[in-house]
Order: sequence, then structure tokens, then C-alpha cells
Amino acid sequence: MAEALVLERIKQLSLREIDLPQDLGPGDVRIRTEVVGICGSDVHYYLHGRIGPFVVREPMVLGHEAAGIVVEVGTEVADLKAGDRVCVEPGVPDFSSRAARLGLYNLDPSLSFWATPPIHGCLTPEVVHPANLCFKLPHNVTAAQGAMVEPLAVCIQAATKAQISPGDKAVVLGAGPIGLMQALAALASGCSEVFIFDPLDNKLALAARYDGVTPLYSRNGPPAEQISDATLGWGADVVFECSGASAAFRGIADLLRPGGTLVAVGMPIDPVAVDIVSLQVKEITLRTIFRYANVYDRAINLLASGQINLDPLITGTFSFADSIQAFERASEGRPDDVKIQIIMPG
Amino acid sequence: MAEALVLERIKQLSLREIDLPQDLGPGDVRIRTEVVGICGSDVHYYLHGRIGPFVVREPMVLGHEAAGIVVEVGTEVADLKAGDRVCVEPGVPDFSSRAARLGLYNLDPSLSFWATPPIHGCLTPEVVHPANLCFKLPHNVTAAQGAMVEPLAVCIQAATKAQISPGDKAVVLGAGPIGLMQALAALASGCSEVFIFDPLDNKLALAARYDGVTPLYSRNGPPAEQISDATLGWGADVVFECSGASAAFRGIADLLRPGGTLVAVGMPIDPVAVDIVSLQVKEITLRTIFRYANVYDRAINLLASGQINLDPLITGTFSFADSIQAFERASEGRPDDVKIQIIMPG
Amino acid sequence: MAEALVLERIKQLSLREIDLPQDLGPGDVRIRTEVVGICGSDVHYYLHGRIGPFVVREPMVLGHEAAGIVVEVGTEVADLKAGDRVCVEPGVPDFSSRAARLGLYNLDPSLSFWATPPIHGCLTPEVVHPANLCFKLPHNVTAAQGAMVEPLAVCIQAATKAQISPGDKAVVLGAGPIGLMQALAALASGCSEVFIFDPLDNKLALAARYDGVTPLYSRNGPPAEQISDATLGWGADVVFECSGASAAFRGIADLLRPGGTLVAVGMPIDPVAVDIVSLQVKEITLRTIFRYANVYDRAINLLASGQINLDPLITGTFSFADSIQAFERASEGRPDDVKIQIIMPG
Amino acid sequence: MAEALVLERIKQLSLREIDLPQDLGPGDVRIRTEVVGICGSDVHYYLHGRIGPFVVREPMVLGHEAAGIVVEVGTEVADLKAGDRVCVEPGVPDFSSRAARLGLYNLDPSLSFWATPPIHGCLTPEVVHPANLCFKLPHNVTAAQGAMVEPLAVCIQAATKAQISPGDKAVVLGAGPIGLMQALAALASGCSEVFIFDPLDNKLALAARYDGVTPLYSRNGPPAEQISDATLGWGADVVFECSGASAAFRGIADLLRPGGTLVAVGMPIDPVAVDIVSLQVKEITLRTIFRYANVYDRAINLLASGQINLDPLITGTFSFADSIQAFERASEGRPDDVKIQIIMPG
Repeated sequence: MAEALVLERIKQLSLREIDLPQDLGPGDVRIRTEVVGICGSDVHYYLHGRIGPFVVREPMVLGHEAAGIVVEVGTEVADLKAGDRVCVEPGVPDFSSRAARLGLYNLDPSLSFWATPPIHGCLTPEVVHPANLCFKLPHNVTAAQGAMVEPLAVCIQAATKAQISPGDKAVVLGAGPIGLMQALAALASGCSEVFIFDPLDNKLALAARYDGVTPLYSRNGPPAEQISDATLGWGADVVFECSGASAAFRGIADLLRPGGTLVAVGMPIDPVAVDIVSLQVKEITLRTIFRYANVYDRAINLLASGQINLDPLITGTFSFADSIQAFERASEGRPDDVKIQIIMPG
Repeated sequence: MAEALVLERIKQLSLREIDLPQDLGPGDVRIRTEVVGICGSDVHYYLHGRIGPFVVREPMVLGHEAAGIVVEVGTEVADLKAGDRVCVEPGVPDFSSRAARLGLYNLDPSLSFWATPPIHGCLTPEVVHPANLCFKLPHNVTAAQGAMVEPLAVCIQAATKAQISPGDKAVVLGAGPIGLMQALAALASGCSEVFIFDPLDNKLALAARYDGVTPLYSRNGPPAEQISDATLGWGADVVFECSGASAAFRGIADLLRPGGTLVAVGMPIDPVAVDIVSLQVKEITLRTIFRYANVYDRAINLLASGQINLDPLITGTFSFADSIQAFERASEGRPDDVKIQIIMPG
Repeated sequence: MAEALVLERIKQLSLREIDLPQDLGPGDVRIRTEVVGICGSDVHYYLHGRIGPFVVREPMVLGHEAAGIVVEVGTEVADLKAGDRVCVEPGVPDFSSRAARLGLYNLDPSLSFWATPPIHGCLTPEVVHPANLCFKLPHNVTAAQGAMVEPLAVCIQAATKAQISPGDKAVVLGAGPIGLMQALAALASGCSEVFIFDPLDNKLALAARYDGVTPLYSRNGPPAEQISDATLGWGADVVFECSGASAAFRGIADLLRPGGTLVAVGMPIDPVAVDIVSLQVKEITLRTIFRYANVYDRAINLLASGQINLDPLITGTFSFADSIQAFERASEGRPDDVKIQIIMPG
Repeated sequence: MAEALVLERIKQLSLREIDLPQDLGPGDVRIRTEVVGICGSDVHYYLHGRIGPFVVREPMVLGHEAAGIVVEVGTEVADLKAGDRVCVEPGVPDFSSRAARLGLYNLDPSLSFWATPPIHGCLTPEVVHPANLCFKLPHNVTAAQGAMVEPLAVCIQAATKAQISPGDKAVVLGAGPIGLMQALAALASGCSEVFIFDPLDNKLALAARYDGVTPLYSRNGPPAEQISDATLGWGADVVFECSGASAAFRGIADLLRPGGTLVAVGMPIDPVAVDIVSLQVKEITLRTIFRYANVYDRAINLLASGQINLDPLITGTFSFADSIQAFERASEGRPDDVKIQIIMPG
């Protein structure tokens, strides 16, 4: 039994004791959680009780963005020891599955993922996890930054799939937490300039604080003329769609250069209308991502080197005791909020 | 003045004298056309007078699938001489344009293309064309086969973009002329097996004549179970969408393996509903093509080596004198017809 | 204890009882071997007792090219059952290793491989192996063909890494077993024509039996003029170096087109002199391979579809009882011999 | 006739009047040169009279790293006008050549290049050049920086070919002008850390001024242990060989991770001994570059955005009148010198 933030059912959270698996396998480590970030998906389960086919049918501990300290290691663990500071990749695949052998372990259908029903998450003081999914944090990366690696990894995955060439220009649609991190990931991956569209002034103001990011106001889809002007009529090399809004796909090809790449990061709930011919006449490639594989180490490298600075995006901090309030706050979706984190006890 | 098959206006063709540019520039060759194939786009201009933004406003000579014999060469032409048998790449780009420098000369907006208004096509006994867009035919490739290189090039472009790995399994949606050639191009490009879906028995019967091609009946989109069964639940490595039907995109991700590739070859007239999330959970890449670049030589190689045999697809032949009848026949869209060609005089 | 072909020490083989691990783990299958091919590396261990850092210090069972029949399955094996005909991928990696997660499980340093000291091989009537490295053979692929999948996989790996575009022209240097299979793999992977160089007439005569393969006589490295002539001065798209001879690298860039790819398949014992500038002025990419990963299924697909026919390459067959003679014969290196296989008892 | 720095013969320079082509074609611009950098190849022609097959047989104007101001435009030039500040891509290809159509215009054998015999260079107050090889400089990029784009483009080409993934770690061998710029290009292209090896303290001290660059002392080839330690035994993702020294290739595979990439930037005069097997067991890819194609715009983007700061590398400035002294200084190869530039008159 351990204390945890439990989603009992839609819109009902408890901070209470719950029975959690605590057995330490030979390849596992036990981690004392330090910081846990709140993700949009956590909030979505809280408010709606489901995401697509994943339905919360039993009480479930929330949280999947964690950094902490190793307190115990299994008998076969060689690379970690008690006291190591780590962040945690929350999806556990079968590395010998057909997808995993191809390097696509994130696409293994048997993968279990924290706080995706029926798997419990990490909003509890101690978690047990495979050691080979825990990544040491360098001394100059804080636990709060370490807990940002999970969402950043999504953006690094997208930046990797975009196959950015050095000096490319990119567009990001949507300046929510993922959109903002995507802009930073694109810059750190070789882009020389990123144009980010959003209809909210507060989001754009935050984006404007970063060198190399040009915020652009959008209401009904991104105006292609602004990108055309900024690229002398050529178009951007890459567009990262991070809004998940169906409207974002309207005229999206107009933002891109011939041979450009569109990466679908946001997840639109319903099918969206896509003008295939508009993609064809420019031979645009659409890439899609699902979480991430093999990027945690590289995301940590870019935080440690200072090429990506996420501190301005951590806009709210709550204690574990106040974690229900943290979720209520996150559920409000205030324009000034980006990432809200919970500081764990101990 | 030269005799030509002229589209006067919607649904009105004439075989008549028309004034055509016949000046031979220093880099040009004059070609006596031998065989010209009828493309779906020719028929579409005939029946509808337009394709998207391209509207036939003046009488226009049709035809862009040509093979012929060089009869005269410009002063700077070194690689061709009178008597050479050639097939012709009908799009003339500015090779120094920004897109062309990247290797994407097919995406140069200034490109002019036979029988795309206002540019005249090749259904006339002699044409003048840049020598560097004319490709010598080996002795064992006939003029009729040479006139198939143009549509085959579309399929080779798609097969190239699909980045097929040897032994891949592919699905082709739609068994029209392009779908059938796409199946053959996929096999010649490394696929070990191609499943082709169509609602018409005649098309499937023709597909069944090729080793390695499995015809599958579809009415309301392709049944994913058949592909799932054939691939032990894994999915195909590549799907070539060649129908241009919006229904084809419904459930299309179910046909593909994790990390698979979808190539949009068919051109749906209207935007289609795409379930982005279904692509994301498998990290599917959508590639699109527009005509072709740098594939004529490779298409000819595959015809000459016998790896692609298009003869069964040439299902009708008309004389130039009967070319209006040829278009009428092509417009009927008979289930047994695949490619109709016109034999030029001389 | 089981009977096996044991390499006792350099140049001494015994067919005798030896103690072999026979425990069946939950994920393992027990296989009754049907056919085992002799690889150049088996012969090399026989004659020299070592390959690079791998030294035979204890008696070791030879053989790593096996097809057989599943006779027993472990408790967790779902995809195979007794009676299934399979071929076996002989390298067992740790699929959760850092290299394996990237899709490069063949590069995992902890990988153990049949008949690579100190691991025993498969020249014994029964072997135990992880089920997920055993691949079902279709009904139309014989056991003898199945035992060819292992060496063919090397060539499919090379063809995959070469990123062949449809209609490419390739050169293969060396017409030994790997060179010949490489030519066939290249054709099946999209090449329209393969030029194969060798100094031995018998090898070239065998190569000449295949459509699409042009045999070329070479004594002191491949004469670039022949390739220049055959490609109108442009060069081949891909060169597969399969001889392992240092002389093959002399002038090798002259065989390739600008932007071409060189794949090093053969393993030269000593460092070879490489003219880096000759590669640079054509921006040639050199790719290297080490065994294979994720290609067994695709190799089997290409055998089953008939796109690769290896039967002419199986030039000698011995019974298990005569397996020492089989090795003596293989050691002679007769010009007519390509692949010698051993038929296992039972 | 125009004044120019003329290489009369080996080791003899004159600043004198010479007859240069000054006709302005319809697609050309006339440029008043502002700054011209001295490249190692200029110095090499000065000292040795040849580079490989390129031999200086007639007096030749040196210099190919230029920035300047457009003073006149040809009749067909639309994108530039008098007064525009530009830097110049010095190689003029035939954009319709077979290599150029593939996007590899730098590999067109007919390409003419400034200060490569028999083509005159740009160390003269006015040059005529195709407009489509002149790139506008943003207001915040100086002429001195603009004259650095040419050598930087080499490094951007290498970084592009390396297909860096975000967060990769790279090694650069050699801290000369190209090595230093390569380190900066790698960081700007997504690397999180670059280790640079050189035997000269002064070079390493300069490298140490850049964030993210770790200088490492080397005498006899790079010690792999330092990289092994820094990467926890895994190896670097990319190695850029920028020394051109044959010794650099000894043990070079030990620096790389499984599946890593080696880019040969430096041009070794003689063939070098390469241990092919050491590359194979890690499936290392060797990429080579020759100058650059399609990177000028992207190099300028990265200078304008501040992601690459080359100012510390401009270590000496001479007037045009003193350009002979500039070459004498450059020929000394002082350890503190990196890039020496000449300020043109007017």
C-alpha cells in the first residue's frame, strides 16, 4: 500500500492509499519520485475518463512525467546504483517484439505505459521500473527539468523524423506546451528560424521570449502569406502541426516549400479533411509520430548542453499534498499556464 | 502548319491543320512520332475541359505519351542523332530553378508540360523537344513500349519514394492503368508480393495474369482482414493508393504495418477525410508524388531487362486517322480497356 | 550428449558424441536439423582455427546455416508448433541492448552466434534455439533452400543498405558464393542489370546462367572502361565489393556514378589502401554491413516468390556421416563449387 | 583590363593589370568585391602550383571566397538589383547536366570554379557572375562574415550529409579553419557536444572559446579512450575527419558507436590505409563531400540567426594593396592564424 493521486472516476480525484505493485525484479530499480509533471493526457483522463480506446474502468494513479532518485536496484542492474538521479521513460515495451527489433519499440502493441488504463502512473512517492528505461541526469539538469524530458521527448521524436537539414526554416502550428517545446526542439535540431502560430496572445508572448522564434497570430488557420513573405515565396522546409485542430490542415500545403515535410504531432480527435492534391503538387511528405523511441538520452544531452532551456515553460508548482488543486488548476487551461509540476514528498 | 488531334472545346475534337511551334533550337531535336498513348488526363480534358486550375481556353493538341524517331538535331546536341529511337519526357522545367537544383525539377512551377493548357501535346506527326528530355530506346524496346514509359515513370517515381526494402509486401488500391503498372513497378523494385484491390472483375483478371500479384475484390474500401491474414497480422510494408477515391482512405492505416509507408498516387478531386491518429499510432509516413523526375532512364532499364512487361496492358490500338474514335473509345471506360495507343503516320 | 561434427583443433574434425546444451527454455524451440550448409567461415575455422579475434580454444561444433523441423516448443512459444518447418537465424542478441533498441541488434556486442567460438554450431541432429529467431518456411521453399537463407540474408542486408532505386545498375566484385547471391539479391531488389567481375571462368559461367547478370573477366581489379562503356560514361549506381581482396579497392571509385554507393560486403583481412579523394570528388557513400538484422522474413519472401532462385548454387550435397569429407571438399575451393550442404539424419 | 592578384607561377604573385572577362550576360550580375578570404587551396596553388590534376599553366587570379555589392544586373535578372549586398557561390555548373538534375550540381564534371585552373578567381575589384549563384546577405551579416560563407558551406554540406539526429555527439579530427567551422556547424545542426582533436595548443585554445566544444589534445591519432569515457563506452554518433592526415584513419572506427557515421571532409593527398573490417563490425557509413550544393542559403540563415558565430575565426585582415603580404602570412601557417581576409578597394 502506498499513497498516490488516484483517479477514482471521471472528475473525481483522491489522494489516498492504494495497493501498487512494488516487487523489485532483477532488472528493475526502485525510484523515489522527486518531481512529476502534469500532462494534457492526465487532465483529459481526469475530465473525460478516456482517450480513444483507453477507458478508465478502475481507480488509476495518474502521472507519467517523472524524475527521481534511485533507492534500490535489482540483482542484475549494472548501470545504475542507489543515489543516482534519473528521469524515467514511462513506456515498457517487449524489446524482442517485431516492431521493437526494427527500432520501433514505441509501436509494440504490447507496450504498457504509465497512467494509460489499466496501468498505474507515477504520482506516488516510490515507483518500480525497468532500469534500462531510467536515464541518469547530469549534475546540471534539475529534477524539475528532468521531469520535462518526457514531453520534450515527443518533440525530439518529431524533430528527428522531420530530418531537418541545417539552416531549415520551420513552422509550428499551436503554441501549447508541445508546440512551444517543438519550436525549441526544432531550433536545437538545426533550424535557423521557427514561426509559431497561435490565436492566444499569452502563448505568443511566451514564444517571443526565445531567440529564433517568431510568434504569429492566427485565428482561422495560419495565413500562408506571412510564411510566403518570410521565405520569399518559397515556403517553410518543415511544418510541425501541434494544435491537433482540424482547421490547421486547411491550406497547410501552402506553408511548405516543394519537397517539404509536414509532421503531425497533435492528435485530432476526428478525421480531418486533407487536400491530397495540394500535397502532391509539392511532393510533400507527411510524417507522424507516436510518443518516442531512443530519444531520452538525446533530449537529456540537449538540456545539459543548454541548447534547450525549458525553465520558462514551468509555470506552476504544487506540493504532492496539493496535487488535486494542481489538477484543478491544470484543468482550467489558463492562457498563462504551460507546464504545471508536482513536487513529491521526501 | 501541321496536322494534329486538336481539342477545340469540351467534347469536341478535330483532326486538322494547326499552327505549331517547329523552330529547332540549338539544344532541341525534331522527332517523328511513332506511337502516342492516351492518358486519363487527355480524356479528362476532352470530357471536362479542365483539370483543377488548368483550363482549356484555346484549341489545344492532346497527347503526352510519345515514342518516335529523331529526324533532326540542333547544333549543340551531342548525345542524339537522326535515326535514334527515343521516348520523350514531356515536361520541360527550368533546370536552374530553385526546386530543380534540389533534384526536384518536376516541382518547378515554371515547368511546361505537353497537353496541359496552354501547351500543345504530341498527337501530331512531328514534335520539337529539348534533346536532354529524350531518351534512347534500346533495340529490344518497341515504340509501343516506349510510349508506355511516361505513365510507367509515374509508378517508378512512386516506387522510388516508397523506399521499398527487398522482400517487402505491398498493397495497391485500384487496378486501373496506373494501379496495374504500380503493382509491376513495386515487384520490380523489390517487393516480393503485391495485393491489388479493385471492384471490377475484369481488372482483377488482368492483374491475376502477373506472377506475384494477388488480386482482391473490394467494394467499399479494402478489407483490412485480407491483408492482415496474408501478413499474419503484421500489415503491408507499403500501400500505393492509386484509385484517387476518397473511400480508399477510410481505414487505410489498417492495411499497414507499424512504421509502414503510404504513397498517394491517385489524385482525389476533393479533400478526403484522413484519420490522422490511425496513422500516428503506427508512425505511418505518407509520401506524395507529382509526375516524376530522374526516372525515365530507370524505367527504360526495367523494360529492357524484362523485369516489367507492359504488353498485356496495351489493349487497344488505333491509327492516327482514327484518333477521334480512339478518344471516344477511351472515354467509354470499358472494363477491359487499359491503355489505348495511337499509331502515328510515317 | 549428442553426435556432432566437432572441430577439435586446426585441421582436425571428428564426428563424435559431445555434451551440448539441450535445455528447452520457455521461449525456445527444439529443432531437428534437416540441412546444414557449409560457410566459408566454417572452412576458415577448420583450416586456421581463428577468424580475427575469435579463436577456437576448445572443441567446437561447426555449422550455422540450418533448416529443420520443430519438434518441441517452450511453454511461452505461441507462433510455432511441433512439425513446423523453419530456418534459423543463428545469432542471439540481447534485444534490450542499446544497439538492438535502435534496430541494430546484429551490432549488439553481447550477441552469441553459432560456430563462433566459444559457441557451438548446428552440425548435430537437434538444436535448441529461441523461437523468435526461427522463421517458418512456406510450403514451396525446401529445406535445402531454407539452409541458404543465412548466407542470402547477408546479401539482402547489403542490398537493403545500398538503398537501391528501381532500375539502378550494379557492379558486384567477386563471384564466390556471396558475390553470386549478391548479384541475385541486387536484381531482386530493383536493379535492372548487374555486372559481376571475377578472374575465374567457372564462376563467370555460372553467373551467366542468370538473366540480368553480365559476367566480366577481371584479373587485376575491375577494368573501369567496361562499366563506363556499359553505362555511357556515367558509372554504376551501386558497387558491392564481395571479394574481400585489397586489390578490388584500387580504382573502385571509377566504377561509380556521381553520388553512387559502395557497399563493403567482403572482409579484407588487412587494412586496404583507399583513395579518399577519388570517393570525395563523386561524393560516394561507403556502406558496410555485419551479418544482418530484420531480413530473414524478407529473404524467405523472395525465395518463395521465385524472384531469387538459389538452386543452381547448391553444387554439392553430402550426408551427415560424410560431413568430414564435405569439409575436405569445401576446403579444396574447387572452381566449380559454390555451396556445399550436409543432409542431416532423421 | 583590371587590377588583380595574379599567381604568375609557383611562389610568384603580382598585383597587376590583367585581361579578365567582364561581359555581362543576361543572367549575370556585376559585383564590386568587398572582402575576399584566403583559402588553403589558394595558398596551395601559390606554393605548389597545382592541386591534383589541376595545374596552373597560365597566370591566374586567385581567390574564391567573396562578398560584395551588386553594381549592375543583366537583362533577365529579377531577384537582384544594384546595391544588393551578396556573397558568391564560386562554382558554375551546367544545371541541366545529369548530375545536376539529381540535385548534385557540385558533381557536374563541367563545373567551372573560381581560382581553379584555368578559371580566374575573385581577387579583383569587380567580378561578373551568374545571378542565381549570388545570395543576398541579411542586414546583420557583414561582408567579412559573408566572405566566410564559402568555407562554411563545406562544413554545412558535411553536416547535412551526416544526417545528424538532435542531441548527437560528434568528434572533429583537426582544428584548422575547416575543423573549427565543422565543430560549429555540427553544433548548429543538432549536435549537443563536439569533441575536437588537434596536436596544436593554439588551435585547441580557440576551440575552447565555444560552448559545447571540448578540445582534446592528440599527437598520434585520436585516443579512442577519451571518447569512450565521454560516451560511457558507446562512441560518438558522427566523426568528421577534417585533418586530411592519413594517421587520422588509424583506429577511427573506435571513436564511433554501432551504426555511426564517418564523414571525410579533409582530402588526404595519398591513399590511406582503412581497416574495412573495423567499419563493418559497427556497420559504419562513410560519407564523402565535394564542396557543396544547395547550402549557401542555409549557411547564411545560420549566420544571421546567430547560431554560428565565425567572428573569432577571422584572425587577420589585409588591404588589397597588401594582398601579397597576406598570402605570405597565410603561407607561414602560424598556429594562431585561422582565416585571413583581404579588404577590397572601393
